[in-house]
Amino acid sequence: MRTIEWVDGTVETIDQTKLPNETVLLKMKTCGDVAEAIRTMKIRGAPLLGASAGFALALTAHHSKAKTREKLLEELQQSAETIRKTRPTAVNLFWAVDRILSKAQAACLSCTALARFVVEEAKRIADEDVTANHLIGKHGAELVQDGDAILTHCNAGALATVDYGTALGVVRAAWEQGKRIKVFADETRPLLQGARLTAYELKRDGIPVVLITDNMAGYVMSKHMINMVIVGADRVLKDSVVNKIGTFTLAVLAKEHKIPFYVAAPTSTFDTKRTSAEVTIEERKSEEVT
Amino acid sequence: MRTIEWVDGTVETIDQTKLPNETVLLKMKTCGDVAEAIRTMKIRGAPLLGASAGFALALTAHHSKAKTREKLLEELQQSAETIRKTRPTAVNLFWAVDRILSKAQAACLSCTALARFVVEEAKRIADEDVTANHLIGKHGAELVQDGDAILTHCNAGALATVDYGTALGVVRAAWEQGKRIKVFADETRPLLQGARLTAYELKRDGIPVVLITDNMAGYVMSKHMINMVIVGADRVLKDSVVNKIGTFTLAVLAKEHKIPFYVAAPTSTFDTKRTSAEVTIEERKSEEVT
Repeated sequence: MRTIEWVDGTVETIDQTKLPNETVLLKMKTCGDVAEAIRTMKIRGAPLLGASAGFALALTAHHSKAKTREKLLEELQQSAETIRKTRPTAVNLFWAVDRILSKAQAACLSCTALARFVVEEAKRIADEDVTANHLIGKHGAELVQDGDAILTHCNAGALATVDYGTALGVVRAAWEQGKRIKVFADETRPLLQGARLTAYELKRDGIPVVLITDNMAGYVMSKHMINMVIVGADRVLKDSVVNKIGTFTLAVLAKEHKIPFYVAAPTSTFDTKRTSAEVTIEERKSEEVT
Repeated sequence: MRTIEWVDGTVETIDQTKLPNETVLLKMKTCGDVAEAIRTMKIRGAPLLGASAGFALALTAHHSKAKTREKLLEELQQSAETIRKTRPTAVNLFWAVDRILSKAQAACLSCTALARFVVEEAKRIADEDVTANHLIGKHGAELVQDGDAILTHCNAGALATVDYGTALGVVRAAWEQGKRIKVFADETRPLLQGARLTAYELKRDGIPVVLITDNMAGYVMSKHMINMVIVGADRVLKDSVVNKIGTFTLAVLAKEHKIPFYVAAPTSTFDTKRTSAEVTIEERKSEEVT
């Protein structure tokens, strides 16, 4: 099952804040619904944010009462602005709205045809993400040896993408190739995406997973229990990679222990024009640490 | 107020699993009560475990119906065995029972006098811990500069000792000297002693404290927000220091960022005869990570 889907003018996804205890289907009918789901982290994960941003514009286009192409483009621009304001760090959001806007602007289409085009383009973004994840998995799995123990952080799995996952795409591909691997998942405070989402996803697929607290990573590395670290990314910059808090700590620990450290991400997460100094790193409300 | 006290044949302490939401006074009447409180982490912190072990033997001595010195010594030995089995890593437990047993065996006293002697010796252990902490604070504070931001892990405060604290003893002494300092407290999963105990202690004393999740430590160091790291210890060995999970990660991060890393501990925590290979590192039940 895909994490996000277009179903007759509604966008359906799973409320990730309720997992793993409850599987609550979220039906979003407007761009505002999607923006709210992003802000409250019911939807999260850079590639999924990109797909969601696309679908947010698709909702606007599909339900628009605009009579002219210009009016529809104006509404799409407003929706793009709403989405851009939700979360600053993951570049996929910006990438998806920019892609749809620029294609829509360039297309010589009637208002009705343009609306259909936007919906199709959003679906294409989602489909391409699934393809990209499978390719990431295929390429990444070459790095995984039979018997490896792989540490990952946060959730870069099917739930962070449209399907299959980036870091977990690599894990899944290695597993499907018959490699006997084991995953160590950091619980990832404060919102515990590792414990709630990664451990849940892997257990569901029957892939061996050990849940550890974030502060155990150094210890398990020092005891030679980890062969590689693989994480996703919010944004891959000219000079650095931005990802969930705690990723940098893992990179330092991996360096200290000479353990290979990999970042798995699709090109939609790349922002090779900017450096870290030019990017706003999101700080969430302090209430999340409770 | 002291964390642990002898009150007319009862040992009183605070149930640390209930803090900071509730302050529940725990009244222990037997060695078994103390052992149970240690096992369930109602009492924790290496120096406090030492003092508690002493008081556990004091309870046995005080309430003993033994008529002879030999019988009392036998009971004390049984109590020492009960205490030794509670938690394997913190050496203070073993140190305190060995100290009381060997002094009791060497003392030429009647049964009644011996019982009194054991109670007095347990009180001495507790008093000495307070003195040691103040001295640790005095010496350690010389390392703290005005304006320093100090990172600590778990709780090495008044609650981990009889009073004042080891790592937090250094913080308190620096603060009392008028140095404008700020403490970053790691929340310390799984049982959150940093969030529940350290942040609580420091707030109560008016010392500025910022609570961070364990996985934020690397990030705040990389942003030059930390000048020194100071932690307590469960056991200081010939070749290493054993302390709460996550301490090693902080040491690696501090090394990477060239931030001084200090361990504050009394001599009762030193075990300079052994190496880490000769010590059982306690692994708690996996249920704690939930």
